[in-house]
Amino acid sequence: MTMRPHPAVTTGSLPASRKIHKPGTAFPDLRVPMRAIAVHPSAGEPDLLVYDASGPFTDEAVETDIARGLPRLREAWIAARGDSEFCAAREVRPEDNGNLPPEKVTPAFPVPNAPRRAINGRPLTQYEYARAGIVTAEMEYVAIRENLGRAAKPAMLRDGQPFQAAIPDLITPEWVRGEVASGRAIIPANINHPELEPMAIGRNFLTKINANIGNSAVTSSMEEEVDKLVWAIRWGADTVMDLSTGRNIHNIRDWIIRNAPVPIGTVPIYQALEKVDAIAEALTWEVYRDTLIEQAEQGVDYFTVHAGVRLAHIPLTAERVTGIVSRGGSIMAKWCLHHHRESFLYEHFAEICDICRAYDVSFSLGDGLRPGSIADANDAAQFAELETLGELTAIARAKGCQVMIEGPGHVPMHKIKENVELQVKLCGDAPFYTLGPLVTDIAPGYDHITSAIGAAMIGWFGTAMLCYVTPKEHLGLPDRDDVKIGVITYKIAAHAADLAKGHPAARMRDDALSRARFEFRWEDQFNLSLDPDTARSFHDATLPKEAHKVAHFCSMCGPKFCSMKISHDIRDAARLDAEKQDGMAAMAERYRQGGNLYMPVDPVPGE
Amino acid sequence: MTMRPHPAVTTGSLPASRKIHKPGTAFPDLRVPMRAIAVHPSAGEPDLLVYDASGPFTDEAVETDIARGLPRLREAWIAARGDSEFCAAREVRPEDNGNLPPEKVTPAFPVPNAPRRAINGRPLTQYEYARAGIVTAEMEYVAIRENLGRAAKPAMLRDGQPFQAAIPDLITPEWVRGEVASGRAIIPANINHPELEPMAIGRNFLTKINANIGNSAVTSSMEEEVDKLVWAIRWGADTVMDLSTGRNIHNIRDWIIRNAPVPIGTVPIYQALEKVDAIAEALTWEVYRDTLIEQAEQGVDYFTVHAGVRLAHIPLTAERVTGIVSRGGSIMAKWCLHHHRESFLYEHFAEICDICRAYDVSFSLGDGLRPGSIADANDAAQFAELETLGELTAIARAKGCQVMIEGPGHVPMHKIKENVELQVKLCGDAPFYTLGPLVTDIAPGYDHITSAIGAAMIGWFGTAMLCYVTPKEHLGLPDRDDVKIGVITYKIAAHAADLAKGHPAARMRDDALSRARFEFRWEDQFNLSLDPDTARSFHDATLPKEAHKVAHFCSMCGPKFCSMKISHDIRDAARLDAEKQDGMAAMAERYRQGGNLYMPVDPVPGE
Repeated sequence: MTMRPHPAVTTGSLPASRKIHKPGTAFPDLRVPMRAIAVHPSAGEPDLLVYDASGPFTDEAVETDIARGLPRLREAWIAARGDSEFCAAREVRPEDNGNLPPEKVTPAFPVPNAPRRAINGRPLTQYEYARAGIVTAEMEYVAIRENLGRAAKPAMLRDGQPFQAAIPDLITPEWVRGEVASGRAIIPANINHPELEPMAIGRNFLTKINANIGNSAVTSSMEEEVDKLVWAIRWGADTVMDLSTGRNIHNIRDWIIRNAPVPIGTVPIYQALEKVDAIAEALTWEVYRDTLIEQAEQGVDYFTVHAGVRLAHIPLTAERVTGIVSRGGSIMAKWCLHHHRESFLYEHFAEICDICRAYDVSFSLGDGLRPGSIADANDAAQFAELETLGELTAIARAKGCQVMIEGPGHVPMHKIKENVELQVKLCGDAPFYTLGPLVTDIAPGYDHITSAIGAAMIGWFGTAMLCYVTPKEHLGLPDRDDVKIGVITYKIAAHAADLAKGHPAARMRDDALSRARFEFRWEDQFNLSLDPDTARSFHDATLPKEAHKVAHFCSMCGPKFCSMKISHDIRDAARLDAEKQDGMAAMAERYRQGGNLYMPVDPVPGE
Repeated sequence: MTMRPHPAVTTGSLPASRKIHKPGTAFPDLRVPMRAIAVHPSAGEPDLLVYDASGPFTDEAVETDIARGLPRLREAWIAARGDSEFCAAREVRPEDNGNLPPEKVTPAFPVPNAPRRAINGRPLTQYEYARAGIVTAEMEYVAIRENLGRAAKPAMLRDGQPFQAAIPDLITPEWVRGEVASGRAIIPANINHPELEPMAIGRNFLTKINANIGNSAVTSSMEEEVDKLVWAIRWGADTVMDLSTGRNIHNIRDWIIRNAPVPIGTVPIYQALEKVDAIAEALTWEVYRDTLIEQAEQGVDYFTVHAGVRLAHIPLTAERVTGIVSRGGSIMAKWCLHHHRESFLYEHFAEICDICRAYDVSFSLGDGLRPGSIADANDAAQFAELETLGELTAIARAKGCQVMIEGPGHVPMHKIKENVELQVKLCGDAPFYTLGPLVTDIAPGYDHITSAIGAAMIGWFGTAMLCYVTPKEHLGLPDRDDVKIGVITYKIAAHAADLAKGHPAARMRDDALSRARFEFRWEDQFNLSLDPDTARSFHDATLPKEAHKVAHFCSMCGPKFCSMKISHDIRDAARLDAEKQDGMAAMAERYRQGGNLYMPVDPVPGE
């Protein structure tokens, strides 16, 4: 891991890992990245391939430079399709960056962007291609990426409970197309984000996680935000939302997108609000529309749009314990009440679709009325909005757009499943994307944990993407350490969900790590874990010497009490025993066939 | 919070909290502790009463001194029952403390212990009293403690999914007796632990958590272990297990018990093994028996006994990924294989019951064959042992003993429920006490989180007590910080379980904290949380000034973007609106009565 002097982002591979690339078949020039984790030769095991969202920053063969941006791998694919053209780019205006005096403006990204859009309304969203039976390069890329080379492997044990999911043994490009065509999955991929390494969000794919970054009115710079982006994907964030609400929003976003191998999401109403000096009631459709075009041209892959917050829903929040806790939702509610008018997002939704479609910006239909406390979970306001989101999903799809649906929030365990079932039913199987949910309100400072419990469960029930929560939730702005803890915590939740759904490849990593643990391959145990650095440092805190990393015991029990060591002794003894007698395995077999559980084995005379 | 110079344990109340005591009715001298958390007068709310396991250390009115031990509150109750007598105490022998030279022996606890035991086999376990229809002081204490003063409160919303639990609105002493008599709950309370503040473990009580402490062959002292005990209960540990495997085991345990207001559990085989120089095959029934008596006289409240690891089960572990991971289980497996004999714990189980009964030491029947990896979850070895534990439960109850059952371990989410269902069925409703379970193996360094996911779920399904896991699990020895993180994480899991089960008092704390959050009562939000210190420090990391603690916004969004603030504006507007028009509440009511969801409210002309 090396730190560049300026601008500083963390690069280099993770321990014992190297980046490999797999080619496509229909698109042979695809170079689909995976991370290969090497284990000790004594294990006699091949490298473990894991999904890799970290982009070129962890590729030792690539020299990255955030002032140059990432390679534009999709550029040729997009151009080859011939359905988009360079358009007259919208001029950047002072209000895009908060009307700052020139000396305070974050410098524009050095390489100017030449935005594309659809030629004369031609269909170019992944949804439209999929419906037309076209397998895109993005779809083949996703198929290879999700499949993790398991074509060559024997079938894995499939013992999960998938609920409404149906994950095939092998992921093919045609299957990906079918998932996108059905609306069960989306591939957020703005044609103006050619640096993107395509990925899919859907309940039949690996469960994804999102990390939020972004400056606030209070603090932070472009360098900090790009660093957080690179740091978040290093640890596994599949998408990143830029939730900036401070100044320099436009220019910081440019730096983020040009360095993002993952889809970037935004909440355009935040910037629109900044353009009207943060006065919600001063928002207009025209300002919002202009902001959509601005961000779509920059390459934002998905927009959170709170078009489900309708005037009629607002009274339903009146008796809530915590009112409206979504920023976007509260902004729109305030606008609606002030003007006593229906939401302009709802009224202009078809026009919003037309804009999104021209660049293939996916919708993330926002849950502006999500519960902000256990008391408000699954209430009338929340579900009234969800019903509206279902209505909007149908409109967006009819317009050719890709759609996912945002979900809560704060929900006690027994009310989680209802959220997924209702969302699937009301929103035509669109991918669900939830924030946690937190299963209790009483642990500020630990809300990454309260929410990981809910996230793992809702992921299991079918949520396609989990938005992380950091330890600072409800209290302050996450720093770099918080971002990492949030990402690792959500990788745990997403992986636990994949295991429980019976994803055919999920258990490979658990089993590889557990074998390493049982065989005292300490380095392998660290390297196969989600956070090798932390695992190693915790081990070394008690037993720092290098020799201890090959020791057949650990600090917890010491050499004499080590159950794993005793287990090995037992196996050795059992092997000898098996040679001497009828064999332990045979005895175990007899038991499994329904033999007497408590049969006297080597009975003691007289007892 | 003050730190005493020597021996240093943390004392003093938590922020905005004071200890109150409630008297008994049948036993008027009972002083049952609760923690009262005060909120700002502007809230107009009474103090929130929460369950308090921390003992006199957090009582500002009590001067504690660990060299004197805690007040012996149960002494008079036990003496008054007249069914126990002082017995000739077993002499402490050099091997009890690891045969250390005198200068290395931890000093004995300054006040010698005069142990009691039952007179001539008279029944004195809480189970026996309960079966005989006797409500003990311990039972009334537990009833008052669990009830948290809710007699006077209106009925709470009961919207949980309790599965097999049946939690009454009010907890009465007679109801507690019934739970103990049925075996669904235990009150671990050795008659030689008069310092104990009685508590119950059962699925119809608040979900409890256990923290493990104890030295190892490698490190740590009496002071450190007593400090960890006091620290663990300060943050909410309901019981503490002393898992020491190093030297000075006997004397350290004395210091721990004399300062423990919570039940102390041990795994006696650990000390027995130390007495035979850590050679498993050298263990004998006589050494083990002697150790049981030694520890029962000291006042250990529950023993983990791995009597379910039978010779016939061991072959079932032969093909496991991680073999046997329980220390006690592996010790017994090694002994069985070496001697080719049935486990002496199994064969002498009735005698073990006789010993436990004479002091009222509860059983925690150990799951020596619990899975140590996702791959091994719910396998034949695990469930064969569980069946044996059911058999042993019946024996122990017939002998008059209290029993709980230990459970896994590592279990993916979709296999958790089966564990509870099978345990309830096979073990005659005995309380279940599980370690996590971890829902994936891939995150060493974060196993408090991987296991909290499983713990919350298994708690919801009916597990009565959750054994904590710290971030150091699998890697090293937990220090003081790890103990706190483990305890808070498990308080989250236990509380989430209580919420989901529909415990009638659980949501009071969530609601109080959420009201504080919505009303920008920052100090109340900190004080009502599980860890006020961390919540406050995270807030102050971004907004350190005192003035910000009354600010109507926070660092996350800043003043202009605060959704909560906007929500308040909305409510004000709605109030005005209600006066002007028909009223928002009426409109909401109309919706709830099945009115048109999308009725045009204030329609815009021409649209």
